[in-house]
Amino acid sequence: MGNHNTIFGENYNPLGHIAILGDKKPLRLESGKKLSSFPIAYQTYGQLNPDKSNAILVCHALTGDQFVGGENPHTKREGWWNNIIGKGNILDTDKYFVICSNVLGSCMGSAGPASENPETGKKWQLDFPVITVGDMVKAQKMLVESLGIEKLFCIIGGSAGGMQALEWVSKYSDMVYSAIPMATSYRMSPQNIGFDEVGRQAIMNDPNWHNGKYSEKGAVPQSGLAVARMAAHITYLSEKALFRKFGRKLQNKQKIGFDFTNVDFQIESYLRHQGASFVDRFDANSYLYLTKALDYFDLEAEAGGRLADAFSNCLTKICLVSFSSDWMFPTEDTKTIVKALNAVAANVSFVEIETDKGHDAFLLDEPVLHKTMKGFIEGNAKELGIWAKAQ
Amino acid sequence: MGNHNTIFGENYNPLGHIAILGDKKPLRLESGKKLSSFPIAYQTYGQLNPDKSNAILVCHALTGDQFVGGENPHTKREGWWNNIIGKGNILDTDKYFVICSNVLGSCMGSAGPASENPETGKKWQLDFPVITVGDMVKAQKMLVESLGIEKLFCIIGGSAGGMQALEWVSKYSDMVYSAIPMATSYRMSPQNIGFDEVGRQAIMNDPNWHNGKYSEKGAVPQSGLAVARMAAHITYLSEKALFRKFGRKLQNKQKIGFDFTNVDFQIESYLRHQGASFVDRFDANSYLYLTKALDYFDLEAEAGGRLADAFSNCLTKICLVSFSSDWMFPTEDTKTIVKALNAVAANVSFVEIETDKGHDAFLLDEPVLHKTMKGFIEGNAKELGIWAKAQ
Repeated sequence: MGNHNTIFGENYNPLGHIAILGDKKPLRLESGKKLSSFPIAYQTYGQLNPDKSNAILVCHALTGDQFVGGENPHTKREGWWNNIIGKGNILDTDKYFVICSNVLGSCMGSAGPASENPETGKKWQLDFPVITVGDMVKAQKMLVESLGIEKLFCIIGGSAGGMQALEWVSKYSDMVYSAIPMATSYRMSPQNIGFDEVGRQAIMNDPNWHNGKYSEKGAVPQSGLAVARMAAHITYLSEKALFRKFGRKLQNKQKIGFDFTNVDFQIESYLRHQGASFVDRFDANSYLYLTKALDYFDLEAEAGGRLADAFSNCLTKICLVSFSSDWMFPTEDTKTIVKALNAVAANVSFVEIETDKGHDAFLLDEPVLHKTMKGFIEGNAKELGIWAKAQ
Repeated sequence: MGNHNTIFGENYNPLGHIAILGDKKPLRLESGKKLSSFPIAYQTYGQLNPDKSNAILVCHALTGDQFVGGENPHTKREGWWNNIIGKGNILDTDKYFVICSNVLGSCMGSAGPASENPETGKKWQLDFPVITVGDMVKAQKMLVESLGIEKLFCIIGGSAGGMQALEWVSKYSDMVYSAIPMATSYRMSPQNIGFDEVGRQAIMNDPNWHNGKYSEKGAVPQSGLAVARMAAHITYLSEKALFRKFGRKLQNKQKIGFDFTNVDFQIESYLRHQGASFVDRFDANSYLYLTKALDYFDLEAEAGGRLADAFSNCLTKICLVSFSSDWMFPTEDTKTIVKALNAVAANVSFVEIETDKGHDAFLLDEPVLHKTMKGFIEGNAKELGIWAKAQ
């Protein structure tokens, strides 16, 4: 990686920023509870132009974070969308001001069960109010407004990030010129809720969870969280991708071991590694909160059973993207969204990308995805004359 | 349920039987270890005819048992295939002698980690040798031979039971006149191994597992086993079946709860129930052994990479059945088996049954499945003149 200031613009701060929101007017959550003076951690790349028309909000997935590009200061790994952000790239930091905030309920600096309850000075733990995708988006809106931005040029997100993008379009379409929700749905399926519940039970059954008070006890429900991640991780990949990557190859052995001490297959080793490394970077209670928020997400039910009503008065130009081998959020779900948007005569385009990489394809080097994003973003930027203004 | 003697024949014993096998000649396992004087629990229905030509071996699935029909004396629930067994039914106990044995490694009376090690008088626990599907079938063969049966009229099994049927056809085709392997594969996919590993990690991470010695400690790794079952259970159903049965319906509430104490959705409640009731009837170490045996199953690799070679000299008439919505063992796997059998000019037919019920469809009331089974079994029985002999 080169010098980040050169890649992301002069005001780039590798550690990101913290905004304290809800100081004057608290955030009223869907549960009825309120949050005052709560932190939202965010990162920006590039420069906001004088008329504040070049802001792109990137929404991260379930266990993602605000570090889209550069080096993640927590994990010391590359930003999760480093392949599409930077000077001359799709999210061109010479032209756009890219914002990504850690979602409410997460654990990378934003308010969540692992953050401090200002009233007690202790960690919230399970006293943190249960939140929804709608609440996450309300907090994002407060952040965007605090930056003086009245209208976002674009909102982009995959998976849970795509749900946030759809929630923005549904509730605050007048603040969103364009949006790219990808690998996502308008609601969680019972299968997805089922896998989330498996993960939550794994965590809550771990004796080190201590009814959510593990940090008080100096414990970490590592094994429960690792199992949760292992199960979820399978759903992020396709069967074909697993065959391509691992097949039935053995891990460092010529023959099966006939024991339970060592792993036999590479896929076992891979999943154990995914579980173990997740525990290092993620808070178990946050995982409960975020999966619950996703499970609750249902734009159709919220609109009284007719999804089109969730998008009435839609002003946003929308490009929906699905991936043919994504079985977590299958293309069928995206088609349902397209139909609903068509029913309200919204400006919508839709691309199903043929790939065997499964749900996680949105994070990977998918040429058709990148071409689609570039075309959509550049076309809209030209239409609005954003390039000229930013230069 | 009526009188079982009337339904299943005069010699029907509701508690089943125990055979002690390997008394004279021990069972040599694939691991190289040996098992002597080990119990295999089995159940029979109907009467063996004088020339012993009417025996049908039913092979149960992963966590199934020998109680195909009648009442399971352990669970007090109906036998798992009660809908197809009995007088005048598909597995007609007036005509056939139906045998089902609890697989080696399981916990319903056959030798496994929860059974007694004759050398120590204590439970085997993890000292029980790691077994394979091939070993299970060797034990079945010993049982069948101990009953004086030289050739089975038919072998039927779904899922792991289908693997056993395929193993029989691959190794002992001369002992099998016909076979119906259903909802199965010639090897586990990395996705399936992944889900198995999630389950094993959930069990082995449970502090009540005590390195497999939980019975010595008076403990049961209930929560780990329940989580394992919950994850596995999702793979037994299809997304559509889950939508049909549960959708996003809430469990005993009008509104989402915004808490982690109670379940919100019916699917959560259903999975928790599946986990909890499984713990009551199944041994955690057995679950480790049986999933491992399945993961090891790979007829293709065993045949040196060419599946057809696993079926050379195949004398068995085979009817393969797959289910369109089975994503654990997709139809594609069955087609691969059909091709391999065609390559050796075996007598094979194949039916893909259109259903949205997923992998578990083989256990349910699927009219096309039942018609297929009935036609195949009756046709073969007529050909062999078995009806006449049994009457």
